[in-house]
Amino acid sequence: MNGSEKGKPSLSRRGFLAKAGGFIVAAGAGFGLHAATDAVATMKADDRSAAGNTRNASEPFWGRHQGGILTPPQRHTYIAAFDLVTTKRDDVIKMLRGWSAAAARMAGGQTAEPMGQDLTVAGPDTGEALGLPPARLTLTFGFGAGLFTKDGKDRYNLATHRPDALVDLPRFNGDQLVEAITGGDLSVQACADDPQVAFHAVRQLARVASDVAQMRWAQTGFITSSSPKETPRNLMGFKDGTSNPSVNDPGAMGKFVWVGSEGPDWMRGGSYVVIRRIRIALEHWDHLTVAFQEQIVGRHKYSGAPLGGKNEFDSPNLTATDKDGNSVIPKNAHVRLAVAENNGGARILRRPYSYNDGINFNAERWPRWQGMEYDAGLLFICYQKDPRTGFINIFDKLSQFDMMNQFVKHTGGGLFACPGGMAEGGFIGQRLFEIA
Amino acid sequence: MNGSEKGKPSLSRRGFLAKAGGFIVAAGAGFGLHAATDAVATMKADDRSAAGNTRNASEPFWGRHQGGILTPPQRHTYIAAFDLVTTKRDDVIKMLRGWSAAAARMAGGQTAEPMGQDLTVAGPDTGEALGLPPARLTLTFGFGAGLFTKDGKDRYNLATHRPDALVDLPRFNGDQLVEAITGGDLSVQACADDPQVAFHAVRQLARVASDVAQMRWAQTGFITSSSPKETPRNLMGFKDGTSNPSVNDPGAMGKFVWVGSEGPDWMRGGSYVVIRRIRIALEHWDHLTVAFQEQIVGRHKYSGAPLGGKNEFDSPNLTATDKDGNSVIPKNAHVRLAVAENNGGARILRRPYSYNDGINFNAERWPRWQGMEYDAGLLFICYQKDPRTGFINIFDKLSQFDMMNQFVKHTGGGLFACPGGMAEGGFIGQRLFEIA
Repeated sequence: MNGSEKGKPSLSRRGFLAKAGGFIVAAGAGFGLHAATDAVATMKADDRSAAGNTRNASEPFWGRHQGGILTPPQRHTYIAAFDLVTTKRDDVIKMLRGWSAAAARMAGGQTAEPMGQDLTVAGPDTGEALGLPPARLTLTFGFGAGLFTKDGKDRYNLATHRPDALVDLPRFNGDQLVEAITGGDLSVQACADDPQVAFHAVRQLARVASDVAQMRWAQTGFITSSSPKETPRNLMGFKDGTSNPSVNDPGAMGKFVWVGSEGPDWMRGGSYVVIRRIRIALEHWDHLTVAFQEQIVGRHKYSGAPLGGKNEFDSPNLTATDKDGNSVIPKNAHVRLAVAENNGGARILRRPYSYNDGINFNAERWPRWQGMEYDAGLLFICYQKDPRTGFINIFDKLSQFDMMNQFVKHTGGGLFACPGGMAEGGFIGQRLFEIA
Repeated sequence: MNGSEKGKPSLSRRGFLAKAGGFIVAAGAGFGLHAATDAVATMKADDRSAAGNTRNASEPFWGRHQGGILTPPQRHTYIAAFDLVTTKRDDVIKMLRGWSAAAARMAGGQTAEPMGQDLTVAGPDTGEALGLPPARLTLTFGFGAGLFTKDGKDRYNLATHRPDALVDLPRFNGDQLVEAITGGDLSVQACADDPQVAFHAVRQLARVASDVAQMRWAQTGFITSSSPKETPRNLMGFKDGTSNPSVNDPGAMGKFVWVGSEGPDWMRGGSYVVIRRIRIALEHWDHLTVAFQEQIVGRHKYSGAPLGGKNEFDSPNLTATDKDGNSVIPKNAHVRLAVAENNGGARILRRPYSYNDGINFNAERWPRWQGMEYDAGLLFICYQKDPRTGFINIFDKLSQFDMMNQFVKHTGGGLFACPGGMAEGGFIGQRLFEIA
């Protein structure tokens, strides 16, 4: 798939006009209309040794599982949902092949397609990531219900292969989903340690999609911590992700995250992603006492310890009471309702980002308010073996009883089946299209 | 202004529950409702030695000039405009004092106010930057026309001190400014190498503003390059900022950026900022040939060299013609129209960011189009000694003749007078309020 295999010149983004590993690229000065020559070799970015700068590292694209699920969270994301607008199954296959090939190249720090010398055609890459490192880019693809059936139509002869687990999400208590930013036939989540690398990747895929699929919605997100060992804080100021199952525990991942023999073959090694765009009423949240915030979350704000505990990773003590007999962790605290032992042992792998879309004029029902509000909050993302036992099971209760609900509003997102990974040269969902 | 001076406990964000320079903070475990003690010292983040990670460095807040103007561009920005809603001059002064004190603390990696132990009141800081390094945070404050007069009213007895240079921006050809995201009485630009640190800072200032000022609009932005030596690419894929005057040339800065003796005393050492939110029609741009994009910009896409030149920093040759007598750099190319020699020697210091607010359904007049469009583009920001000879002078012509205009749309922004810097313990605009 790379340029030299096809006998065309090809440049990695890093190699472009730059030294890479001491190797000087000949195309340096004057690459404009005159451009590269066939002598310019394909190169892979090779800057991983740069101490402490994860932007220079890359993540594998090919493999048994898709990247971006167990991958240590990158700092930035750009998530897009696409709607298929073609009636032809072959168009879909061709696009997914193109997406996979481009994704593999970009994960390696290369341009979406090999850079040729003919600048009188639209570029093979829009160029804004030239010179930038791979930044640990991952691209995680998902299939929505609309790939299988849409408006009652079996558009691509796939209807019988819709997995049972790819349900229509129920309407949860308090849902205020906006149709334009909900659902979609396909999802693409780009994650990278550089926001321009993440956006660049999806932008190239949108060009590949061309007349086959069009973007339905897109959302940027970010997450930050001082070190990979520290649990990041969300915009509520609390640590978010403390009680996640460990991605280093294959048993837990097999039990909670990866689809196994209970699923269709093409989903094995895959997972289901639930995305929820959750506005947080920061205007109100920021006026609460810290003590009250802690009652809502069920954890101490600064240490992250469960109420009554000392350290972040202490197990919440759900039976502890104070001297008056009241629960130390309130009955309607977020952590109590979400904990596995109150959900039949169910666990999900959260991989959340924050989002920040500025401010808007808004009116809220509760707490009663009108004025300028932050359009910022949590881009909740979770992976699971089966959403019926995972997110739906857990959130059904949370949406009714969680004290946090009065400060959050779910406005968009979706559920997508993320197929298992691909061997080199394959394409996403290949096993589905080969059996169907 | 720090906690220990006031005899109250104070924690830096980095010191919070963490080691800082080998110094273990006593408040570690169990800091929840039980909290810090007076024994906990104020600490400054001291991780600058961490190789290659600028997130750990900090920028000075106090000084002759405000930070964030000549400061090497940080990776992220959060810009907010505020409208004053008080009728009392003293409220404004008190808020600006509070802003300056909080800004100085946060630039040093500390919480907005010292962290006390009483968690039964709303926190002195919303907490989402706890544990994060200073990330080279700068906060740059500006005064809009509305501080001096609004709706014909001299609200704060400042009307006679409105600088001549703080004009109302004229309506430029093609302007499609949306009132809700244009103007404002005050501007705050937070820049940092971490998006959460930048947003956190403005969010704390909004809390300080409380009932005195309310946010009018806010916009996130980002910029990225593989090294500080490399000119970043904007979302058009072209290098942006090549022909900036050098921030290391005090003569050029004195001539083009800093207000001198021609301005009012309180503006000396200050500058005027013009902010323009410019949507780029990436859907269309990405379909052009690279050769045509280069004709529009007047530069080669990959090298950044002016057309006809070899290297990025070559001066554009405006007289060169091809064999048919046509200008190598077209008459309506962006670079030709913007270059100093075609603008009476005028130069501005651009400090742009890209922005990315997802996608929207939209309809465009030209090129004719309706469908999903990226809500992404350039957050154009420039600093200058006088906007009449700077941005207004240059952009008046560009807005009429620049071939690029059909791919961009100015939707918001403003002009703000950024006062000179402050000595430690002072506040932004102090010299204005002391004379007025």
